[in-house]
Amino acid sequence: MQVRAEARSVSLHWEDGQRNRFHYVWLRDNCRCDQCRHWQVGDRLLDSTQVPLDIRPQRVELKAPSLLEIAWPPDGHVSQFDVGWLLAHRPGQAVTVGQGLRRTTWDGAFADRIPELTHERVTSNDSELLGWLRVLHEYGVSLIRHVPCRLGEVGRVAETIGCIRSSHYGTIFDVESKPKPNALAYTAHGLLPHTDLPYRELQPRLQLLHCLLFEAQGGDSQLVDGFHAAERLREAHSASFDLLASTAVTFRQLEEGADLSIEAPMIGLDDDGRVDEIRFSNAKLQPFDVPEDQVISLYQAYFQFAELLRDPAHIIRLRLEPGDLLVFDNSRVLHGRTAYDPQSGARHLQGCYVDSDDLLSRIRVLERAAPPLSPDSSKLSTL
Amino acid sequence: MQVRAEARSVSLHWEDGQRNRFHYVWLRDNCRCDQCRHWQVGDRLLDSTQVPLDIRPQRVELKAPSLLEIAWPPDGHVSQFDVGWLLAHRPGQAVTVGQGLRRTTWDGAFADRIPELTHERVTSNDSELLGWLRVLHEYGVSLIRHVPCRLGEVGRVAETIGCIRSSHYGTIFDVESKPKPNALAYTAHGLLPHTDLPYRELQPRLQLLHCLLFEAQGGDSQLVDGFHAAERLREAHSASFDLLASTAVTFRQLEEGADLSIEAPMIGLDDDGRVDEIRFSNAKLQPFDVPEDQVISLYQAYFQFAELLRDPAHIIRLRLEPGDLLVFDNSRVLHGRTAYDPQSGARHLQGCYVDSDDLLSRIRVLERAAPPLSPDSSKLSTL
Repeated sequence: MQVRAEARSVSLHWEDGQRNRFHYVWLRDNCRCDQCRHWQVGDRLLDSTQVPLDIRPQRVELKAPSLLEIAWPPDGHVSQFDVGWLLAHRPGQAVTVGQGLRRTTWDGAFADRIPELTHERVTSNDSELLGWLRVLHEYGVSLIRHVPCRLGEVGRVAETIGCIRSSHYGTIFDVESKPKPNALAYTAHGLLPHTDLPYRELQPRLQLLHCLLFEAQGGDSQLVDGFHAAERLREAHSASFDLLASTAVTFRQLEEGADLSIEAPMIGLDDDGRVDEIRFSNAKLQPFDVPEDQVISLYQAYFQFAELLRDPAHIIRLRLEPGDLLVFDNSRVLHGRTAYDPQSGARHLQGCYVDSDDLLSRIRVLERAAPPLSPDSSKLSTL
Repeated sequence: MQVRAEARSVSLHWEDGQRNRFHYVWLRDNCRCDQCRHWQVGDRLLDSTQVPLDIRPQRVELKAPSLLEIAWPPDGHVSQFDVGWLLAHRPGQAVTVGQGLRRTTWDGAFADRIPELTHERVTSNDSELLGWLRVLHEYGVSLIRHVPCRLGEVGRVAETIGCIRSSHYGTIFDVESKPKPNALAYTAHGLLPHTDLPYRELQPRLQLLHCLLFEAQGGDSQLVDGFHAAERLREAHSASFDLLASTAVTFRQLEEGADLSIEAPMIGLDDDGRVDEIRFSNAKLQPFDVPEDQVISLYQAYFQFAELLRDPAHIIRLRLEPGDLLVFDNSRVLHGRTAYDPQSGARHLQGCYVDSDDLLSRIRVLERAAPPLSPDSSKLSTL
């Protein structure tokens, strides 16, 4: 490697012929020493704004094949940079946190391959936990069997991932038929496939549902991969896809103690145009508020998307048994249920939510002690 | 008012000469009857997709000056619409939830007028609570005095607004100098003005900080209105403003049990280009990852914004006393503190977070029993 100090930056010429410029202000700002960063916390202690935009080093030196040392004015402060760290942080080409994770969409045929694990396995060690979380991230669904039928157990499983996201339904909510329901879930009604809390600014990502008691007739669960359905919509009716991805609709929760609402599109895209979030709830959707000449096309797009989401070829049906804990990506996988007869027996689930960034954080922390993800390592067969 | 039934919609001609078209599919979908909406929950029970896009009514009739009645095929199902409801929900012109709330920015001269209330007053009745929350929304800061110095009291105040947002620091966090800190806040270091948890997908909106004990020397608090500083930046250096509003930077929290990170701009704008969110933390900011030729201009924009945020003319300084509870909009008002000497005495704050939509929800719920906001009603003098 060759090092060349220039007016405002140092150029590194790598073995492969590539060249990168690291500006002095950037280098001084990102000094890794204990004076500039807190040795325990890792936070920057250096006040970046004290670095002159046009700072020029007193000395630039390759101390060893992989160690660049720079001395700075006014006091000769020394920064040492590992060359590998510089390579990973090349401006405009940095390695993004969390690369390597992927998503794989599915349809109804996935019913036979829905990732199943035992509670004992998931809670036995960090390696099993990591395997489970990678699969959960990739497919957006998994089923844990033989979870002890104790109240609050769902929260203990959630906390192996991250902190529980509270809502006006509480930290852990009880899904059962209630005398004064504030949600259809708390009745015996059937529920069309939907996402939970679409009316929150941040729709919770992971939902955990633990079946404690289920003697009632009916009440079968349905799951559908909203990302898969959205991609089918994009293929079949691209104008409808674009409309749903660009039109903000209102979801609202209105009850005695709450009035939560948000305007957001039903299909959320990331910066690269990939489907990243679904908000879908026929129950919570407010009257469309679009110009008169768009009303029919918005309904048409909505109905086309709904038809794909309810296509039997896309849906997984299952009946939860006591001890089953269903975990799914609530911003991707819609869930529903058939109506049940509360006179025929009890049905009691407990649930809670965990945010997306907590899931990614746990995966990264567990990966520190684990081999990186190989192309095959998230295969279902490894479960 | 005149009613005219057309092929796909009914036209209403209002007294003022305006005309609105309500499509039949929209009207059938938004039927308010107990069969189509759950009488307790308010959720839509009607499966919208069962409404034909080209549905035509059997009968359209103005039953009273303010009651439109429509009968639908195939079974003569009757929908009744209050004309005032239709007026409020005109497609493309609907009344938005939460209209009437505004924001007023401030600079350092606001120090004398920072909204102060007693704990007794805030907790005495719903009307006082509503007044406080409106002021908090408008100015993004308030100070509650004489809060009992009990552990956990901050959580009780938070729960008068909404549910507490947990993080990896817990539900209620203790701000004091700790032997194994995982944040600079838990040392005696000074803290440059910053927003908390900028590395979370949803940065928490409201932060509550309750001073329980403060005998140490130093540790004065600083507050600055980031929306005000951002607008000054837009005026003085519009290219820098645009750069910070359009360039995603990475904030990251890396510690033993967590690795949380997000890419987001420092200045977030709403759909109308208004400043809506500030993410700012010199400590948590990761190395800039932009093309080489943008490094200097990004640093320049960052330093210009930081200079405005630290301008003494923009900053409020105050020293919390035991019993003080500072509440502020963490996505708008940056907070900092001077260093303190832990040998000179103890300093113990407790804090927690509440999300923005919980605040708005509480305001709307309290407004049901209160007169609507008049142009003057949020004036500080009313406190």
